Amino acid sequence: MRYVFGIDVGGTTTKIGLFQDDKLIKKYQIRSNTEEKGKYVLGDITNKIKEVLKEEKISLKDIEGFGFGVPGPVVKNKVIRCANLGWENIQLDKEFKRLIGEDVYVKVGNDATIAAVGEYNKMGLDKSIVFITLGTGVGGGVISNGIWFEGATGANGEIGHINIDKNGPLCSCGKRGCLETYAGIRGWNRFAKELIEEGKLTTKLDINNLDPRFIHTLAKKGDEVGIEVVKRVADVLGYACANIAAIVNPDVFIIGGGISNAGWILIDNLQESFNKYAFYGVKGTTFELAKLGNDAGMYGCYYMIKK
Amino acid sequence: MRYVFGIDVGGTTTKIGLFQDDKLIKKYQIRSNTEEKGKYVLGDITNKIKEVLKEEKISLKDIEGFGFGVPGPVVKNKVIRCANLGWENIQLDKEFKRLIGEDVYVKVGNDATIAAVGEYNKMGLDKSIVFITLGTGVGGGVISNGIWFEGATGANGEIGHINIDKNGPLCSCGKRGCLETYAGIRGWNRFAKELIEEGKLTTKLDINNLDPRFIHTLAKKGDEVGIEVVKRVADVLGYACANIAAIVNPDVFIIGGGISNAGWILIDNLQESFNKYAFYGVKGTTFELAKLGNDAGMYGCYYMIKK
Repeated sequence: MRYVFGIDVGGTTTKIGLFQDDKLIKKYQIRSNTEEKGKYVLGDITNKIKEVLKEEKISLKDIEGFGFGVPGPVVKNKVIRCANLGWENIQLDKEFKRLIGEDVYVKVGNDATIAAVGEYNKMGLDKSIVFITLGTGVGGGVISNGIWFEGATGANGEIGHINIDKNGPLCSCGKRGCLETYAGIRGWNRFAKELIEEGKLTTKLDINNLDPRFIHTLAKKGDEVGIEVVKRVADVLGYACANIAAIVNPDVFIIGGGISNAGWILIDNLQESFNKYAFYGVKGTTFELAKLGNDAGMYGCYYMIKK
Repeated sequence: MRYVFGIDVGGTTTKIGLFQDDKLIKKYQIRSNTEEKGKYVLGDITNKIKEVLKEEKISLKDIEGFGFGVPGPVVKNKVIRCANLGWENIQLDKEFKRLIGEDVYVKVGNDATIAAVGEYNKMGLDKSIVFITLGTGVGGGVISNGIWFEGATGANGEIGHINIDKNGPLCSCGKRGCLETYAGIRGWNRFAKELIEEGKLTTKLDINNLDPRFIHTLAKKGDEVGIEVVKRVADVLGYACANIAAIVNPDVFIIGGGISNAGWILIDNLQESFNKYAFYGVKGTTFELAKLGNDAGMYGCYYMIKK
């Protein structure tokens, strides 16, 4: 019982990590085949795992458990909906056991929440955190005194859908002005486009080829539009965090996801914005960068099995 | 060990409940003397309890514990600040033990959170709730899968300070546009005043003597201004609840506090407003009225000791 598989199922690729005694010893990546409502995804994962077991000469009995993180709400190992995969109402633990063997231990969680679990445990924290992942979507996970929750409908930590402005930009969820429309990739690009079109600030950004990576890379080099975009995103996100803090009052916000590569220029602006908007009872909350990058999901799956 | 004292410390009065085997057998009420930064409050409570012990012929050894709910943030039995009482940084368990006896068990929590604990346990719930108390202030408590948290600085569930409009009315916390300025007593009265001055709707309300009690009592009788005030409060509160749901995703919101006497006219409008603003992942969350009224705090203190 010395091994754990951590499986971070994504809309494009699925990352599979093999853990031995607290260490991620092997990483694999396979394509997520989303054809026919994602009916091949779990079979492909199972085949890859069987292959790994054979290669590594590990028997199923030596596996302590299989942890899955999936891009959608989960309640009691049941995936409610994964729009990116086409999955709906799948009792993932049962389905996977049917494929790999009935005697294994399986746990399933939402990917952002699981990434939060990964960062929390890997950092060796002993406090309350809100983890925020910034990418195409904006997700999150709330861990209070070391405990995480799924929520009634698996939507705990769905902070991308906190409303900022009822008349704001259209969100993928069908509502207008969700946090995601400001702090997700499209938000960064829209702010940049607006500022370039306005023409008041100088920039080396190409309006036809915008991406948060270019924006924050240039911002760090002093690009005027780049800096202003970071400030605008941080303003909205800091405001949202002030409201989150009034509800769950974490010690620290941990910022992860692809956009968090912006690094300290984003964190410093976020802290400033938070301090401006936060009510006195939650002052002192700090912001930190996530440490695990793309491995956070696999680590979270591992800790979900171990704890 | 058959008795528990539940002590709900308020800015004006303090309620003391004596519990025996799950039942609230006696209720007492004393004035909270807020002179000289509230230095007499705890002594007055102790004297009252000693009096009760004598009267009821109960020895200290028969008391399982003393639970305190206080109107301010609490971390590990330390009261960070109670503006209404003048208390600041008081290690309440120690202070109380010094007065009543070292060998007793004492726990301290925030009053709104403790009221949430009371409602939760008394209702025999087994789910995740957000409790909202509507009065002069707007407070709350978050209970996830039966567990409640204080938060990093004791501000868990401080939902009255969720920001609704950065340019809104001035709040007691010094910020503008907090939820409390719309859904607390002053919010109801301001909405009513605005509508009466506008003069478009008929009403029996007296602009010089406004109070949420009059407003919702008349609303239930069909008063046009009364109904519109309930709608406006519900609109803001339902919007805030939609955002809360995206963070902690409760099964149910439970509405308590003095204003909750408005009853189902408020709840129905709240549900409607929530459904309008909530993103699809949290649809299905319901609203219920609190059941314990003024006794919620005492019951919460009791359950805090028992669990």
